Amino acid sequence: MIKVGIVGGTGYTGVELLRLLSRHHDVTIQAVTSRKEAGMKVSEMFPSLRGFVDVAFSTPEEADLKSCDVVFFATPHGVAMAQAPELLAAGVKVIDLAADFRLKDPAEFQKWYAMEHTCPDLLAEAVYGLAEVNRDAIAGARLIGMAGCYPTSVQLGLLPLLENGKALIETQTLIADCKSGVSGAGRKAEVGTLFAEAGDNFKAYGVKGHRHLPEIMQGLSAIHGAPVALTFVPHLTPLIRGIHSTLYARIRPEGRETDFQKLFEERYAGEPFVDVMPAGSTPETRSVRGSNMVRIAVHRPGNGDLLVILVVEDNLVKGASGQAVQVMNLMFGLPERQGLDVVPLLP
Amino acid sequence: MIKVGIVGGTGYTGVELLRLLSRHHDVTIQAVTSRKEAGMKVSEMFPSLRGFVDVAFSTPEEADLKSCDVVFFATPHGVAMAQAPELLAAGVKVIDLAADFRLKDPAEFQKWYAMEHTCPDLLAEAVYGLAEVNRDAIAGARLIGMAGCYPTSVQLGLLPLLENGKALIETQTLIADCKSGVSGAGRKAEVGTLFAEAGDNFKAYGVKGHRHLPEIMQGLSAIHGAPVALTFVPHLTPLIRGIHSTLYARIRPEGRETDFQKLFEERYAGEPFVDVMPAGSTPETRSVRGSNMVRIAVHRPGNGDLLVILVVEDNLVKGASGQAVQVMNLMFGLPERQGLDVVPLLP
Amino acid sequence: MIKVGIVGGTGYTGVELLRLLSRHHDVTIQAVTSRKEAGMKVSEMFPSLRGFVDVAFSTPEEADLKSCDVVFFATPHGVAMAQAPELLAAGVKVIDLAADFRLKDPAEFQKWYAMEHTCPDLLAEAVYGLAEVNRDAIAGARLIGMAGCYPTSVQLGLLPLLENGKALIETQTLIADCKSGVSGAGRKAEVGTLFAEAGDNFKAYGVKGHRHLPEIMQGLSAIHGAPVALTFVPHLTPLIRGIHSTLYARIRPEGRETDFQKLFEERYAGEPFVDVMPAGSTPETRSVRGSNMVRIAVHRPGNGDLLVILVVEDNLVKGASGQAVQVMNLMFGLPERQGLDVVPLLP
Amino acid sequence: MIKVGIVGGTGYTGVELLRLLSRHHDVTIQAVTSRKEAGMKVSEMFPSLRGFVDVAFSTPEEADLKSCDVVFFATPHGVAMAQAPELLAAGVKVIDLAADFRLKDPAEFQKWYAMEHTCPDLLAEAVYGLAEVNRDAIAGARLIGMAGCYPTSVQLGLLPLLENGKALIETQTLIADCKSGVSGAGRKAEVGTLFAEAGDNFKAYGVKGHRHLPEIMQGLSAIHGAPVALTFVPHLTPLIRGIHSTLYARIRPEGRETDFQKLFEERYAGEPFVDVMPAGSTPETRSVRGSNMVRIAVHRPGNGDLLVILVVEDNLVKGASGQAVQVMNLMFGLPERQGLDVVPLLP
Repeated sequence: MIKVGIVGGTGYTGVELLRLLSRHHDVTIQAVTSRKEAGMKVSEMFPSLRGFVDVAFSTPEEADLKSCDVVFFATPHGVAMAQAPELLAAGVKVIDLAADFRLKDPAEFQKWYAMEHTCPDLLAEAVYGLAEVNRDAIAGARLIGMAGCYPTSVQLGLLPLLENGKALIETQTLIADCKSGVSGAGRKAEVGTLFAEAGDNFKAYGVKGHRHLPEIMQGLSAIHGAPVALTFVPHLTPLIRGIHSTLYARIRPEGRETDFQKLFEERYAGEPFVDVMPAGSTPETRSVRGSNMVRIAVHRPGNGDLLVILVVEDNLVKGASGQAVQVMNLMFGLPERQGLDVVPLLP
Repeated sequence: MIKVGIVGGTGYTGVELLRLLSRHHDVTIQAVTSRKEAGMKVSEMFPSLRGFVDVAFSTPEEADLKSCDVVFFATPHGVAMAQAPELLAAGVKVIDLAADFRLKDPAEFQKWYAMEHTCPDLLAEAVYGLAEVNRDAIAGARLIGMAGCYPTSVQLGLLPLLENGKALIETQTLIADCKSGVSGAGRKAEVGTLFAEAGDNFKAYGVKGHRHLPEIMQGLSAIHGAPVALTFVPHLTPLIRGIHSTLYARIRPEGRETDFQKLFEERYAGEPFVDVMPAGSTPETRSVRGSNMVRIAVHRPGNGDLLVILVVEDNLVKGASGQAVQVMNLMFGLPERQGLDVVPLLP
Repeated sequence: MIKVGIVGGTGYTGVELLRLLSRHHDVTIQAVTSRKEAGMKVSEMFPSLRGFVDVAFSTPEEADLKSCDVVFFATPHGVAMAQAPELLAAGVKVIDLAADFRLKDPAEFQKWYAMEHTCPDLLAEAVYGLAEVNRDAIAGARLIGMAGCYPTSVQLGLLPLLENGKALIETQTLIADCKSGVSGAGRKAEVGTLFAEAGDNFKAYGVKGHRHLPEIMQGLSAIHGAPVALTFVPHLTPLIRGIHSTLYARIRPEGRETDFQKLFEERYAGEPFVDVMPAGSTPETRSVRGSNMVRIAVHRPGNGDLLVILVVEDNLVKGASGQAVQVMNLMFGLPERQGLDVVPLLP
Repeated sequence: MIKVGIVGGTGYTGVELLRLLSRHHDVTIQAVTSRKEAGMKVSEMFPSLRGFVDVAFSTPEEADLKSCDVVFFATPHGVAMAQAPELLAAGVKVIDLAADFRLKDPAEFQKWYAMEHTCPDLLAEAVYGLAEVNRDAIAGARLIGMAGCYPTSVQLGLLPLLENGKALIETQTLIADCKSGVSGAGRKAEVGTLFAEAGDNFKAYGVKGHRHLPEIMQGLSAIHGAPVALTFVPHLTPLIRGIHSTLYARIRPEGRETDFQKLFEERYAGEPFVDVMPAGSTPETRSVRGSNMVRIAVHRPGNGDLLVILVVEDNLVKGASGQAVQVMNLMFGLPERQGLDVVPLLP
């Protein structure tokens, strides 16, 4: 049994980790930390876990995280980088669901997250937690910076078009028009995400610049092997869970004869969590609710030169905690679907 | 033109006052105070008011509230009682939408609101702002404690049964099973009313005791002329605006022959904002969305001894700001519907 | 492996059966019938099932339901009673999720469902599918009329108070104020349950009489061993899944010394799917979303003579398909939790 | 007083016309037709209108529409073209909210609406009901084909960039990523727009081709004076009212020095219902809820070559019934804001 610690169990990615790990047959939840709620049963804060998770929140000191095999950080940005060096030194693997180990360039991190990176040396070692791109590296890693929710959907939607220097599409004019449910903002007391503010309402935000943009650009450029540029417009939509990314890519003359449906189907044929829908489909976010699946549809309206790629994911599962469990499975040599064989909840 | 000041314009009752008063032909909005947002245009915080309200938030000092004819307090509990004495002394009428002047007994106030009442002498003078009960007293008042959102719906639903010592129903076993939209909790940063918490979710709260219970009991007892007891169970339902109160009353033997439909219709025949629906109706909250109307339906299932009364209101209008404008109209001798002739928004 | 047939797989209870049964280790889904959609893959209608359910809809004729071990009817009222006799004669067990075998009196059935009962003889044999009441009878049955969604929550909320002629509460003045999510109305094209009608809206319905009332009265009377009378007021609330029942019961003088919290805890101590919450709790519908669990809280406001019992369930799981799987487990001697060990989805 | 008839008063655009016209000081509602509901009071179907609209539905025969000054068609496609010739011949002005008189080419109409156009001669006469483009023509017209909901937002968002042959942006690669609330689908019994289907769900639809695409292309081409091509991807989002269009336009070299914020502000300076937001804004759909206002924000991320224009409107008001009242005002020489001076409902 893998001994698991969770730092920061009071947010949505924390409770989602607990939902999934509590049914994972190879895992023991050894500690869930929250300095503020120490002593309270986790299931008192989240009654959905009554009967499934018996552990109480503990302080980081009590938690003895160094005795864990792996520690997940479901914390605000900046927490993981403060604790990771000591845990790694003790032989504990670290999976950070926040942004501390996503961006390779510490200057970029500082620019977007407004804090200095305290262990830039670990950035080089950290593996980006997107299994469909980095499966082998993840398997051998001891430190993972999990892919963000938007970046996961955008990268998986463009991956087959860009990989390995492909010249099928224009790489400097990509557009990602993304729509996220409100849980993506986390379980923080804020006016903007109140029910009476975000309900029956739709808006764009972060058009001037969003933290996920450099992550997406870094990821796509790495996939492509050359710089890729993209305009990213995120929107807030009144659903609880779910991201729908609508991606626009201009087909280059070299790509005009491509069977894009086939390209996507073949690329993802062996992927356990990427489902290429039949031609003409329009995937719904609820078709992946509660599951680690991503569903993708490829459109070429009027058989013209613009590709429209539709991607849906559950931002808390494939966009966060589910993907983190997938990565853990890889790190410990377990079957990739272990603990993630959950049928989406529809309706 | 009546010169109006609004203290606390950044919450839902504040913006709702502005929506209504900005179209009220006899009113000038002289000042909207917010110490925190002083200098910001009101319409910058609430873009729905662009083109309708040109005023900026001001500090209380700048606002010169003493030059107003009337000041509305759309503030947390405790603010109005601190400022009312000075305003009243300057000849300004005061309408408090919070609870400072609702409960007649300062000890009760202290028990439920956890603060000492600083001007208990004014409690005796203050008139309870429920026009259907206190129309004449309101017209002559200079200080109003507006009825709360739940209490308005419960009192209007039971008024015809209890008024003036009527013996139609048992008065010690009343039940009010009430459901409120989330805006009732205000525009405060809190986890419990986040979209991802309150959305797609339903729960009771405050079963042990809710601040509106003593207000309802005081109001009903005053209406009846004798003590009335009631069990109050509020629930949070995922709508933005709206309260639906389902009221249960046992018919006394003396009441069995009563035509309750007729009783309600006659009682409310002249009321501009109370609509008794045809027999058999089940009113919807959206049928009053954005309006000052209350709709009531009276049921007697199986022609038995239990009355079931259904009441809907918009908690921000008849349950708060609309009713406050109605009260202002009465205080200044204006037609009661002035500024409130708004068709509900459906769908 | 138990060979399972599902008649009527295009509604919400159908897709919910498929969600649960597709992960049930002792079951093979042999056929899902839909005359209208015959030939279409089930996962084409419900993409959430892609990768989990590979079967296509078949006509009843193709389906060869007589070769199944058990057939679930997730159909409109009237379908099961037409097909059950033949299936039972062929040795197939039948579990009806509709109302055909709920009411024991065919005249009552005809009154509420506006159709004659075509096999009244089977009504006597049919066992009411509420495991917490009828566990042993279910285990030996070949025909089950599953409990309705509202009746499940109301009966489980009152069971400990009424069982075996207990005299703790008044049995003629019970009130069930129930609130249901919109999926309870089924996946039928109707104006009243459109998003733009039922969204941001709350209303009562069926106050004059609802089909679940005779079922609740029959069930409670059977539990009590004497007639029980109840006023039932259902409401439609804008959530997808979930029922919240608020039950009101007057305590009899004989019941005043009872420790009701303890009574409920002891009664349900061994029940796998009934969770009595700690004293003072207010259970949320989302705490059981997607799961077969019912959560109950017992309140006695002001330590008076009125009990307020709060019950939450997922209407599509414990209120329908999950409970049907629970019943199937009992009928086939399987562990009761088999296939139902699902953590609720929160948020 | 203008005598108004409404054909088809049972849908959302019908009830919205009634909401607005019932408070319009220069209008008498003479008839609201519905063959199916003839005899029923309009306010019985829509209780929100109780006290505001006293008329009952009538059959078209009873309605004597020829005695009206103007008749609105709030009907399915095909109804207006059947009745318009006779009404026009009788001197009645006609405003069609459906698509019968939008497309100039009858072959295009037939292609997209699957019915032959029965009065193609009137197509040439009909004026496209988008006041910001056709104000003068509308004022002199007797037949209007109102602009559709999506087309209104897209055309207003691009108008300042394209008018009169401007060469600021590329005109063949425009993208309109649009998101609509569910009321846009109308008040029709359909599975896809049920609360339990469209709630907590987000999806694209009509990617292969949507009826509003030819209307948008025709409109933009007319504005520009040369063919304009656009990719249109509509999405369904779980809100009741509201459209958010996110428009993407490549800046041509000739346009690079343009101050786009100023361009938009100047173009719309005199428009009563178009609000250009301050630079950097992200307009919310709720900021126009219930009002005829459109709000627009212009972004140029990273000061690059892609313009991102955000447009919000209430699809039932500016996207349908409100704009129809605006057009009626123009046709009858009334102030354009008459009856439309409504503050948006927020929250």
